[in-house]
Amino acid sequence: MKALVLGGDGFCGWPSSLHLAANGYEVLIVDNLSRRLISEKISTPSLTPIRSIERRIEAAQKIGNIRFAYCDIAKDPGKFKEILVNFQADIVVHFAEQRSAPYSMLGDAERKYTVDNNITGTNNLFSTLTELNQRPHVVHLGTMGVYGYNDAFGEIPEGYLNITVKQTQKDVTIPYPVNPGSIYHMTKCLDHTIMQFYAKNWGFQITDLHQGIVWGTDTDITSTDEDLINRFDYDGEYGTVLNRLVVQSQVGYPMTVYGTGGQSRAFIHIQDTARCVLLAAENPPEESSRVQVFNQISEVHTVRHLAQMLHDQTGAEIAYQDNPRREPAENNLRVSNAGLCSLGFEPITLADNLTKDILATVSKYEHRLDRSVIDSRARW
Amino acid sequence: MKALVLGGDGFCGWPSSLHLAANGYEVLIVDNLSRRLISEKISTPSLTPIRSIERRIEAAQKIGNIRFAYCDIAKDPGKFKEILVNFQADIVVHFAEQRSAPYSMLGDAERKYTVDNNITGTNNLFSTLTELNQRPHVVHLGTMGVYGYNDAFGEIPEGYLNITVKQTQKDVTIPYPVNPGSIYHMTKCLDHTIMQFYAKNWGFQITDLHQGIVWGTDTDITSTDEDLINRFDYDGEYGTVLNRLVVQSQVGYPMTVYGTGGQSRAFIHIQDTARCVLLAAENPPEESSRVQVFNQISEVHTVRHLAQMLHDQTGAEIAYQDNPRREPAENNLRVSNAGLCSLGFEPITLADNLTKDILATVSKYEHRLDRSVIDSRARW
Repeated sequence: MKALVLGGDGFCGWPSSLHLAANGYEVLIVDNLSRRLISEKISTPSLTPIRSIERRIEAAQKIGNIRFAYCDIAKDPGKFKEILVNFQADIVVHFAEQRSAPYSMLGDAERKYTVDNNITGTNNLFSTLTELNQRPHVVHLGTMGVYGYNDAFGEIPEGYLNITVKQTQKDVTIPYPVNPGSIYHMTKCLDHTIMQFYAKNWGFQITDLHQGIVWGTDTDITSTDEDLINRFDYDGEYGTVLNRLVVQSQVGYPMTVYGTGGQSRAFIHIQDTARCVLLAAENPPEESSRVQVFNQISEVHTVRHLAQMLHDQTGAEIAYQDNPRREPAENNLRVSNAGLCSLGFEPITLADNLTKDILATVSKYEHRLDRSVIDSRARW
Repeated sequence: MKALVLGGDGFCGWPSSLHLAANGYEVLIVDNLSRRLISEKISTPSLTPIRSIERRIEAAQKIGNIRFAYCDIAKDPGKFKEILVNFQADIVVHFAEQRSAPYSMLGDAERKYTVDNNITGTNNLFSTLTELNQRPHVVHLGTMGVYGYNDAFGEIPEGYLNITVKQTQKDVTIPYPVNPGSIYHMTKCLDHTIMQFYAKNWGFQITDLHQGIVWGTDTDITSTDEDLINRFDYDGEYGTVLNRLVVQSQVGYPMTVYGTGGQSRAFIHIQDTARCVLLAAENPPEESSRVQVFNQISEVHTVRHLAQMLHDQTGAEIAYQDNPRREPAENNLRVSNAGLCSLGFEPITLADNLTKDILATVSKYEHRLDRSVIDSRARW
């Protein structure tokens, strides 16, 4: 089986590509290396010394069959088409999007880049596959952030909501009403509408993985060889909240919590991202007329709870700051992850005490750390 | 008051621009003349001999204050920003989108062009206005096609649906679940999600006009001077259904009806488009946290009924064809247009017998007609 991984050089893409290769897939990574370029542009390199893509691929040969092709799928649809023609993928995993909410809210250029890159890339993928009459199972990385946080909807189901229409009193199931919290999240809502149309009109099998906030850095594969090491972002734009708090607690920087820290969010460990992507890839939807949605999450916590946990472990102080984002100060969050669990997913949780692995990584590479980039510059 | 009309050289944009100017607005049309270029590319010129934009603008000086700036708002955001800085619009009317459903379904290039042009254009508009801290009332031309045709939802309300969430039994109002029927309609759904986010996060006043199928060609202004004449499309891609049927009935070409002709659609005369755009522009939403939606329609008919009406008037035959589109063969359609009516909109209907004006126009320019372009080439 052949798996094309778009954006396979990134934080989630790289360990997922390795996991697919280790499980017997012939993997071709397509990436424009934009994550590395943005890193340089905003001066926030990975804490871990990630290797060049060439060195990564060389080291990965002992894991499985894995190759790399440089291509910007949004800006170079011609080259992308050639890749699709030549590879004949059974599965396409689509990570090739600008994935930071704060980055997407920095300003005009970042808003435009995020929309143009993400939407054009997604549409180019499906339009070209339609043209070529190829129908691989497409697995798209979405986000829990498409749902918004509305208590009236109850536990967040997997992509679809059962409702009664008031004026007709008829019961129907609808795609969950979207309520994005940033330009980045908005693009994932747009992606979903695009995919629903391609599924309905051209019979694509598509799975949208609405992923929680990823924490951790290495997986059982990336930790076997320094040349396979995964990136670790701790800056205010690309560092995800738990990883940032761990870094702060390790280096004696007060842990930044926005507002009251009462924001409930869903979390998942990077190892589980890789496992879930494989699980999803192997289980396409039975009906191709609508997109299959899984909530790719392991557990729900408030940000305050995470900070408190790290305070208890390390003694680090918590610094409550005015929230730079427009979001409710406190919210309840209940989320179903029944789909992936029914396929055999057994989540790693914070109770498994893997934060000590992150602390060890931070300690090992602390000499590379730049404290000035920890705070976010985005305001919305 | 200053009105910026994006796409003001097109079929709806031109008469709307004139109507705004005639009602005292200082109008600046921004257009990349793409409609004229596509016309040339697919060899389907307007039946009416429309004038160059320069000659149009010159002739329009007797109507009011109206100017033109050439700009592609999707591809040249830098120039577009300069225009926004210099003009300081009170109102922006956004017609600047590829507006043909069949064209958007012709193939790979047309799918990509429609998405890139429409989405990037819309996001460029709002992102740049955000950057400039300008908050004009933005009136966007949407389409009835965003709603899809689902009898379970009852009469189509204006943009929002009242529901009861099954699992919580709570009553909430949600944006109407979208169900586009083509790539073009899909882009209008994406536009709506984009606008909802900009309204929520940056406090824009936005009105989305979900317009029915436009028929007719001239308005009380465009008919006063040959140099102001509006375009008239009768080809399978850009000709709207009633106008195409009128052309066919006039030239002895059997009237093409897809499937059973049982498709119910909402219609509006081009004169009313211009009137409604003005009405909407003058009535921004009171709350800026969500988009105001009006259904810009006058009446609902089946395609079969329209063909029968023209048959009765002209004796022309009806040719039923296999439907090249994926859509229900028959559907009921009830649509609210309460919003615009409450603002004073009094619709022109087919009962006003304006099809004879179209017949007169077709007769006058019949020597320019190319019968080979009447059939649509799009299949979906």
